[in-house]
Formats: sequence, structure tokens, C-alpha cells
Amino acid sequence: MAEKKKLVSEITSMDVDFAQWYTDIVKKAEMADYSSVKGCIIMRPYAQALWENIQHTLDTMFKETGHENVAMPIFIPESLLQKEADHVEGFAPECAWVTHGGNDKLEERLCVRPTSETLFCEHYAKIVRSWRDLPKLYNQWCSVVRWEKTTRPFLRSREFWWQEGHTVHATAEEAMQETLRMLNIYAKFFEEWLAIPVVKGEKTPKERFAGAENTYTIEAMMHDCKALQSGTSHYFGDGFARAFGMQYTDKNNTLQYMYQTSWGVSTRIIGAIIMTHGDNEGLVLPPRIAPTQLVVIPVAAHKEGVKEKAAELYEQVKAAGIRAKIDLSDNTPGWKFAEYEMKGIPLRLEVGPRDIAEGQCVLVRRDTREKTVVKFEDLEKTIPALLDDIQKSLYEKALANREAHTYTATSLDEMKSILAEHTGFIKSMWCGDQACEEKIKEETGMPSRCMPFEQEHIADTCPVCGKKADKMVVWGIAY
Amino acid sequence: MAEKKKLVSEITSMDVDFAQWYTDIVKKAEMADYSSVKGCIIMRPYAQALWENIQHTLDTMFKETGHENVAMPIFIPESLLQKEADHVEGFAPECAWVTHGGNDKLEERLCVRPTSETLFCEHYAKIVRSWRDLPKLYNQWCSVVRWEKTTRPFLRSREFWWQEGHTVHATAEEAMQETLRMLNIYAKFFEEWLAIPVVKGEKTPKERFAGAENTYTIEAMMHDCKALQSGTSHYFGDGFARAFGMQYTDKNNTLQYMYQTSWGVSTRIIGAIIMTHGDNEGLVLPPRIAPTQLVVIPVAAHKEGVKEKAAELYEQVKAAGIRAKIDLSDNTPGWKFAEYEMKGIPLRLEVGPRDIAEGQCVLVRRDTREKTVVKFEDLEKTIPALLDDIQKSLYEKALANREAHTYTATSLDEMKSILAEHTGFIKSMWCGDQACEEKIKEETGMPSRCMPFEQEHIADTCPVCGKKADKMVVWGIAY
Ligand SMILES: [Zn+2]
Ligand SMILES: [Zn+2]
Repeated sequence: MAEKKKLVSEITSMDVDFAQWYTDIVKKAEMADYSSVKGCIIMRPYAQALWENIQHTLDTMFKETGHENVAMPIFIPESLLQKEADHVEGFAPECAWVTHGGNDKLEERLCVRPTSETLFCEHYAKIVRSWRDLPKLYNQWCSVVRWEKTTRPFLRSREFWWQEGHTVHATAEEAMQETLRMLNIYAKFFEEWLAIPVVKGEKTPKERFAGAENTYTIEAMMHDCKALQSGTSHYFGDGFARAFGMQYTDKNNTLQYMYQTSWGVSTRIIGAIIMTHGDNEGLVLPPRIAPTQLVVIPVAAHKEGVKEKAAELYEQVKAAGIRAKIDLSDNTPGWKFAEYEMKGIPLRLEVGPRDIAEGQCVLVRRDTREKTVVKFEDLEKTIPALLDDIQKSLYEKALANREAHTYTATSLDEMKSILAEHTGFIKSMWCGDQACEEKIKEETGMPSRCMPFEQEHIADTCPVCGKKADKMVVWGIAY
Repeated sequence: MAEKKKLVSEITSMDVDFAQWYTDIVKKAEMADYSSVKGCIIMRPYAQALWENIQHTLDTMFKETGHENVAMPIFIPESLLQKEADHVEGFAPECAWVTHGGNDKLEERLCVRPTSETLFCEHYAKIVRSWRDLPKLYNQWCSVVRWEKTTRPFLRSREFWWQEGHTVHATAEEAMQETLRMLNIYAKFFEEWLAIPVVKGEKTPKERFAGAENTYTIEAMMHDCKALQSGTSHYFGDGFARAFGMQYTDKNNTLQYMYQTSWGVSTRIIGAIIMTHGDNEGLVLPPRIAPTQLVVIPVAAHKEGVKEKAAELYEQVKAAGIRAKIDLSDNTPGWKFAEYEMKGIPLRLEVGPRDIAEGQCVLVRRDTREKTVVKFEDLEKTIPALLDDIQKSLYEKALANREAHTYTATSLDEMKSILAEHTGFIKSMWCGDQACEEKIKEETGMPSRCMPFEQEHIADTCPVCGKKADKMVVWGIAY
């Protein structure tokens, strides 16, 4: 298996240089490439297929909860962006500005959307008249642009793909319910489909979305024990409604402001999958979301009947509803093994002349390399069971990693000494004072991740100022 | 039914002012709206749902023929756009230019993609090494921007949504096969799914896509007898390959240029559906592509058991695989009838107390208003049959309209006298000289639509110059 060695040796070990390992995987698994547009990526077919599975799954969950898709314009006039003060302050510094249409200078600059709150606000102000028109539960799938200085594929780039939900409601209560409902949908999706455990919680005021009254988040721990903010859901109160004149007449014929939410996840999800489950042989994809769940590889394919049997098993497996692929190319089995390990395909089915004689084949798990010999007639039963088990194992492994690298601290010094030894999440109390939050970030490099919904009582006082503290915060070095 | 009258009276009659009728439908059926971004539309949920059905159907056809989706950057650097001379000449005048990122002026202007040939070329030049890597059959779904002066929803706007396929091949023959294969897929989709008959043919050199060696098109006739170019497929030869250095090594280890195609359809399709099938009561949607195929409306819903029975029938119909909706709101049946006629829902199921007593309900066709009384237990059989019949009728009606308004002419004078009486397609011979084509356009206002694959011999000579002519061309006033 010289080919395998050669292929694998081109990837940096994750234990030596995690960042380089990540970049190598993105390239070797053919997930993304660069074009001459600085800071923007090309999402290649394999990543696009993964993203389409993500989209399809989430879109179904959104529609089941009454949401409808729309498509808003790609541009935002500068004056519209400026209507909500906090919002423009947050986004204007990273806008890409269109100044010319053809040869003509535009009267007003247009921003390529960094997010579409302002467009949705303008639309809702126009189409909602009475309480009968509420709620409006809209979502859009699109790409957005933010002029970042440093970029990394899927984690931070000048253009990225996402969905942005924007809803308006008659009451604050209903809007808050929606905000939390969508956070829960994200958490469920991450845990059940991506096998990534998340911490659900509320962001501190400092970490809120520009213009939001509350921001809720799901935070995941990557294999290198850094944190990835994986999805956010924002409660806006009636702040944007007041700025944009979004009013409706209630049942008593009185004008009221609408209450609003927004929520989004992006192609960052692909980065999260890579950095949670990948290993030194490449990607490891959770079976429920993998574009291909099983690849059939004939061994000693030149021998009579081997290719034919492989093709037959491929059809058998596909007919059982498994997303399968077969590789009948001239490449050696060793090359193929390495290739599909790199691509993170959950199961490999090997079949050679001896197997055929015995009416069986070999299933190899990508995650553990464990081999199972299976009779042909048992494939329909064994494969789904193995895929389920892989899904479960990946989740448990990621959870174990998070639990092993989550620490508690009661003083700033203790935080620093933990960090000197380990990367990970640190839980501590917090008094609520932004100065203390900033001090922790300054001295440890860790911003607050969130105030988890599942609170614990770690101490009575703030680790910085020593004042009474009743909020537990999770801190972590962030992507 | 005073409400119905009132609602319908808000639409201009298509016989009085077709353009205004179109605009009224787009607005009243809640297909599109404007924002403060001039020339760009908001695609509202109902149009978006229709577009998603279109996307899903076409995407399946693309994948079944071996195509893969990718996502290219939204921007094109000016220098990249300039690499192919004809192409930049065609598109630069309608580019939206990004000149600033945040507060910084960019070193090079970026164009918001009007089409992505240049990006695909750059990518293919990089990733294709040998004949083993060919063909590459990529497609992307996205929006593109062209700075049009005058705009109309779905027909021409500064931003529109589309798919663009871009493929590279080892040989000219294979690329030409792909070009025609995709044109045939478009034609099949239009005729079988949208119930819109199309004329397939080749564009004259004057009407080719900027940079193409051949452009093929499907042309549809709208209800007002004007032509809508509905989808195009381009053969590029190796022109872009030479401009972008797209080479591969063949089986003899010799460097060769790749041969290339591109093909696209856009949200123009929604305009085509409206203008082919709509009537003075609103939209008429072909059942196979309609987001909702049947709406259940209870009559005398305050009477005991009516709402319950309506809900029961709704569940029965949904379980049979029909895309159904039920309206249990307080609005009157008359209001509901008008509303869902406006939305073009193919079938309406009415059920009232007397029907329930007799174990039956009434199905009303949107296209003909024909009523069918159906026993509850026959719904599963009758509804699909009616939907099939509506689909077929719509196609036949559109085809009859086209046939009734397709004329032949042997001289320029004859063309003019036909046009004085009728709008429609005019078939004539053409000598192949661009001067004659331009003269026809100047004098009649009709550009050439295409040289149909199904040629007829109408005369021996060109209607303009009188020279020998062996090509038949279809002419028509274009959207
Ligand atoms: Zn403190
Ligand atoms: Zn002529």
C-alpha cells in the first residue's frame, strides 16, 4: 500500500499543526479551492453536496414549523442600512460597496448584503397591516459578503453561504418563543444529524448581534478544544420596528409595533464537521449527513466475476436506501482505500474472489477501521445498524472530548494556570460587569462563549472583582 | 359574490392592456414586490415556492445526467473578465462594480457576476490535468446582476436567479453533444412540466451569446403572441480554453485544449408561466409544477360538521400524495374562490352540508371552471386524473395559440402586412446575410428568434435580397 502512504503523508498531522491539518484536508478532500477573488472560496462538488444535505434537512425542519422561503435583493442602499444605529455601526466597516452600474456612477452607494435585517424590515413595514397578517415567518438561503481581513475556508471568508430567518410577531412573548424555538432546532440538528454536541446559552451583552436585545447561541468544541460559535438566534424586541416604522393594527384597532427575531447558520457548519470528527487520514463524515454513506470497492477486480459481483452488491445496497457509490476504476484498492478515507465516507464494502466464494464481503468502518464480515443476504440489515452505530459513536467521542476538556475556575489566576496546561472550555461565575469580562479576555485570550441555559453554582463570587456573582459563564478560545 | 367582483375588478383585462395585466397579476398573486433597491425584486413566498419546484425538477434532471453542483464566488476581478475579448465587450457595460471594501479602496475593481464563464474557466484550468479528469459537468444555482435600464419583474431585472451549467470536454463532438443534450432537457422540462410548447433551434450569429461559437435556444409564444427566449445552451469550441490556457494531456501525452459549453434558465420561467397560462381571473398554474394543486374550501362552514368534514377530506387528499391546502378562515367562500383563482391553484374542492349528506363534494377546475361532482371514496382516483387532464389541456391550448399565430412570408412587404394585422411568429427563408436580418428587424421590429431544427421549405429565395436562401428562420417580437 505504497500509494496509501504517499497520499496520506501529504497531510500534516493534526497533533503537529492543527491549522495546517485543517487546510490540508480542505484541499485534499476537494472541499474548497481559491479563485483569483481574494478571500472568497469556491465550494467544490463534494462540499456543495454536503451543504445541500444540510440545507435540505434544515429547510424541512423550518417548513415543518411554518416558515416560508423568500429571496431578497442582493444589495442594500446605504441610507437603508443606516436606519438602525447599532446595526450600521456593526456592519458598515465590513461592507463591500457598489459605486458604479455599467459606466455610470450611482447616486447612492449600494452595499452587497452582509445580512438582510434592513431589507426584511422595509418589506414587513409594507406588507403587514393588521394582526391578521402576523406572524410572518420568512427565511432565505443565500450568500452574504463581509470584508474580513484574514480568512480561512468555511470558517471565515469574504463571501459565505447561509440561511437567515427573519420573523415578525404581534407580541414580545411570541417573538421570544420563536427565538428559542429556532435555537432548539439548531441544537437538535447539530446533535442528531451532525453528531456534534453543543452548549446552548445566551450571549453576554458585549457579544450580542448588532441591534439585538438578546442573542442566543450554540457553541461547539472542536477536536483541538477551541470553541466554534455554530449558530445564533436573536431577539430584537421592537427596536428595528421603531427604526423602520413597522406597525400593525391590533384587535382593538390600535397601532402597535411588531416584535422581531432573526437566526442563522452558515457554511461554517462544514468547518465544524471537519474539525470535530476528522482524523489524520482525512475527513470523517457523520452517516446521516454524508453525501455518500458507503463505497463499494472490488479487490482483485481483474479476476473473473469480481467487478460484476461488486456492481450487483452496489445495486442491492442502493435499493435498500443507502447512499452508495462504486469505484470500478483502474486505481489499486490501496489507492481507493486512502481516497475514500480522505473523503470520510462512513463505510467501505470490500469484495474479492475469496469472499464471493463464501457468499460474503467485508465492511470497514471509517471511524474505528473495525472490520465486519457480512453475508450478502444480511447487508440490508447490517449496514443501517453500522451507520447508526457510527453516528452514535461520533457523537459520544465528541462529547467525551468536550467533557475531558471542560474545566471550572474560581479565580483569574486559576484560569491562567489551567490555560497554561490545556486548551478547553472554562466555566466560572461572573458578576455581570463588562469590565470583568474584558479583563478575562485580555489576560487569557478567552472571550465569553455564553451563559449556558444549564447553570451550575461554581462559587459565590466573580473570579475578577470578587463581588457577588450568580451567573455561570463558559469561556473559550474562539475560531 | 360581491367580494369576488371587487377583487377581480382590480386586475386590468389582458385584452385591454396585457402589460398592465401582467403587472397586476404579479402584485395581486403576491409573486413579487419592490424594495428600495431600484430594479431589483423581492421574490415573495408564493413565487419562491414555485421557483423551488422548478429548481428541484431541473436539478434532478441535471444530476441524472451526471452533473454536479458547485458554488463559485459572487465577484469577478476586472482583469479576469477581460481575458476573453467578445465576452467582456458583451458584459462590461452592464456590470455592477464594487470599488470599496469597508473604508478601503480596492486595488482592482470587482464585478458582481453577470455570468460566471470566466470563473469556471480559471477553475478548470487549475483542476483538470489529464484526459482522466474529463469531462467536468458543473452547474450552479445563484443570482446574477446585470445593470439593465428598464426592468420588469421576472422578465428583466437587475438581479435575477438562475442556474448556469459550465462543462469541459476532451473533444468538440462531446461538447456539442452536451450543448444539445441540455437544450433537449430544457425543451422537455418546458413541455412536460410547464405545459409550454417551445421551438428549438439555433440562434443566428448576430444573436449569439458573447463569446460562443453557437447558441441554441428554446423560444415560447406568450398569450399576447410575443416571443420569450426561455432557455439557451452555448457551444464555445475551444475559444475560452485558448484565452484562459485550459489544457489537458491526452492519452498520447500531448497537450490539448478543452472544449466547453454553458447553458442556463432563469426566473424568467415564472414570467413565461404567467404569460402563457394566465387569464383575467389571475394566474393559472400547471398542476405538475404548482406549489399547491388543490385547495379545500368548506361552504356554509358554520353548519355543524362542515369544517370537520372539510378537514377530513383535506387529510384524505394529502395522504393520496396531492399537494393540498385548506382554508378554514372566516373569509366568505366567494372571497376564497376569487383568492385561489388569482393564485392559479389548479383544482378547488368545495364541500357543504348538502354534499356531505349525499357523500360527495364538488371539484372545480381553474382552467375551464368545469365542475365535477365526486363521491368521497372516488377522490383518490378522480383528482390525479383531473390534474393530468388540466396539464394536457394547458399544453394544447398554448400550442393551439402558437399555431393560430404562426405565419409564413416570402417577402418583406408580406411580413409587414401580416404584422399590421397580427402579432405572432413569422417564418421565412433567409440567405444568411446579416444585413438582411438587420433590415427585417429595422423594418418590422422583429429580431430573428432562431433557425428551427425542424426546417421547412417556404421559398427558394431570401425575402429581403432575393438571393438563394436555404435556411428557414422564425421571427417574432421579443420580450
Ligand atoms: Zn466581576
Ligand atoms: Zn438576403
